[in-house]
Amino acid sequence: MLDSPRPRRRRRVGDLPVAAIAELAGVSPPTVSKVLNGRAGVGDETRRRVEALLRDHGYRRSAPAQAARHLEAVFSGMLSSIAMEIMRGAEAVAGTHDMTFGFLDVGRRPKTSPLWMDTLLRRRPAAVIAVSSAITPEHRETLEAGGVALVALDPTRDLGSTPAIGSTNWSGALDATRHLLDLGHRRIAVVAGPAKDLSSRARLDGLRAAMDAAGVPFDRRLLRSGAFRFEQGRDLGLELLRLPDPPTAIVCGDDLQALGVYEAARIAGRRIPDDLSVVGFDDIEQAAWCAPSLTTVRQPFAEMGAAAAKVAIALAAGETPRRTRVELATTLVVRGSTAPPA
Amino acid sequence: MLDSPRPRRRRRVGDLPVAAIAELAGVSPPTVSKVLNGRAGVGDETRRRVEALLRDHGYRRSAPAQAARHLEAVFSGMLSSIAMEIMRGAEAVAGTHDMTFGFLDVGRRPKTSPLWMDTLLRRRPAAVIAVSSAITPEHRETLEAGGVALVALDPTRDLGSTPAIGSTNWSGALDATRHLLDLGHRRIAVVAGPAKDLSSRARLDGLRAAMDAAGVPFDRRLLRSGAFRFEQGRDLGLELLRLPDPPTAIVCGDDLQALGVYEAARIAGRRIPDDLSVVGFDDIEQAAWCAPSLTTVRQPFAEMGAAAAKVAIALAAGETPRRTRVELATTLVVRGSTAPPA
Repeated sequence: MLDSPRPRRRRRVGDLPVAAIAELAGVSPPTVSKVLNGRAGVGDETRRRVEALLRDHGYRRSAPAQAARHLEAVFSGMLSSIAMEIMRGAEAVAGTHDMTFGFLDVGRRPKTSPLWMDTLLRRRPAAVIAVSSAITPEHRETLEAGGVALVALDPTRDLGSTPAIGSTNWSGALDATRHLLDLGHRRIAVVAGPAKDLSSRARLDGLRAAMDAAGVPFDRRLLRSGAFRFEQGRDLGLELLRLPDPPTAIVCGDDLQALGVYEAARIAGRRIPDDLSVVGFDDIEQAAWCAPSLTTVRQPFAEMGAAAAKVAIALAAGETPRRTRVELATTLVVRGSTAPPA
Repeated sequence: MLDSPRPRRRRRVGDLPVAAIAELAGVSPPTVSKVLNGRAGVGDETRRRVEALLRDHGYRRSAPAQAARHLEAVFSGMLSSIAMEIMRGAEAVAGTHDMTFGFLDVGRRPKTSPLWMDTLLRRRPAAVIAVSSAITPEHRETLEAGGVALVALDPTRDLGSTPAIGSTNWSGALDATRHLLDLGHRRIAVVAGPAKDLSSRARLDGLRAAMDAAGVPFDRRLLRSGAFRFEQGRDLGLELLRLPDPPTAIVCGDDLQALGVYEAARIAGRRIPDDLSVVGFDDIEQAAWCAPSLTTVRQPFAEMGAAAAKVAIALAAGETPRRTRVELATTLVVRGSTAPPA
């Protein structure tokens, strides 16, 4: 066991003093101290190296009392109406626990702003809710090393043992497809989300299950896949509508793609729902405000935000969640964009 | 000058001890202390009575050091994409000042949650940004008494000397109307916002100014006014489209009303922009995603949020803002919903 010659502000929680950690990491003791206390001014790579050493030597920073009163959500350039619903749910829970609730939109940080992880850590949150693709496994390690509890909401990638809140994507798509089959549709096309995204895959699987159960063959030529964007919905929708034998209905990976399909229908001169039925996924606020209003699968975003906040607060208080994966139920919302085929 | 017999935790900032204030208010000293420290558990009416006495006797609570690190926005059931943009702007500024930023959505609080002003004060914000109609003059007094700095963002009512951030509503509507006049429209209708709302009035005045300047008479039969809601846009739009001599263009009070006019056009069998041009106001995120995309006047919500945060943080630091009323510039965004009349 090493010992430091002159350990200034010696803080020995693990089995090595800070100065020894600094020596091993090839940095100054104040830099180790900064990492240990979640302060700013340390490069990403250095921070990771120091964190790894701190972890290996049994350091674990306990959050200061003041930190226990702040909960933070981290987004990455998310659709406002979804982000807002999640935050409304989380904020209400934070309020009942006498906590402040804030957020960091990683995707929209101005270039001149400090590294977002620095900003986040300086806020000393008791816990962080990472929404969708906002957080990488490396970020997770940084938060863990900083003693910050972490909950994932609808994670697009695997975050190991991090507790995760999601919704029933598979069942939601099953319900939506059954609705179209019940209306009499047989040529059902899909504009799916990104193929590597787990929730996209679950939705596609739910659609296939409904069609298989109804004995309706799925025509693979009617399958398109792309980003959750308006433009993708428009372009892929146009491809489908220009086929020699076009679909009578299109199921979309999300509402934004569905709005793009509306634009495709307008360009192609098809009326919704007379000539084409369209179904979305999410139930963002604009789903009720398009012409005609959009039939979609509602994800309970506010409830998901509230559930994530509850788990996050429990984790921060040192409790162990009963389940590490929770899926809240979706609901089919039938509006004006679906009708029997002509 | 009165003096209290046994002043427990005597806190004499004003000219009367807390116990004397309590006696005058007919409440217990701990209740006065709660009000003084912005803590929960005091009814609205009692709080106001105590605050009035505290004010009259020269009390002014200085915010504790910890409070100076939190900034809070208060909304009242606002459109998500607007709320989110405002918050993104404010959050970025808070981040550069090492502050946490949070929000309270007054309009969406569950019935079972504590009074929102209690929740807000328990968060000990250094400053509050009150958006639109979220705050009444009474709330303002409570915050003032609690030593919390206040900035209004696009206030719908007069809040006296409270600094306010807005946008150039009058010029924005002038630009939008000029655009329609330049395209050749003469029968221009209006679906305006609520008549008592100051920004609605400014927009209507800007429209009238553009028409007057172009020498085009304004037909008062083409003026409708209603809430900033999709349904109002739809219903008032239908009224206008069913007139014997319908308009060739409709200028709307906001984008949500414009989306309602889209639905009215769909119901009435008019194509946008071929049969009808439509202009909105705000440039919410869905304006780019409707079929066709919406020509609208962009309010710089993120910049407004950032400006409000800067003023709020300055006020909290004891500075005096140079101007108490700031209007940021709007921009006309021409998209697919406007074209020359048929």
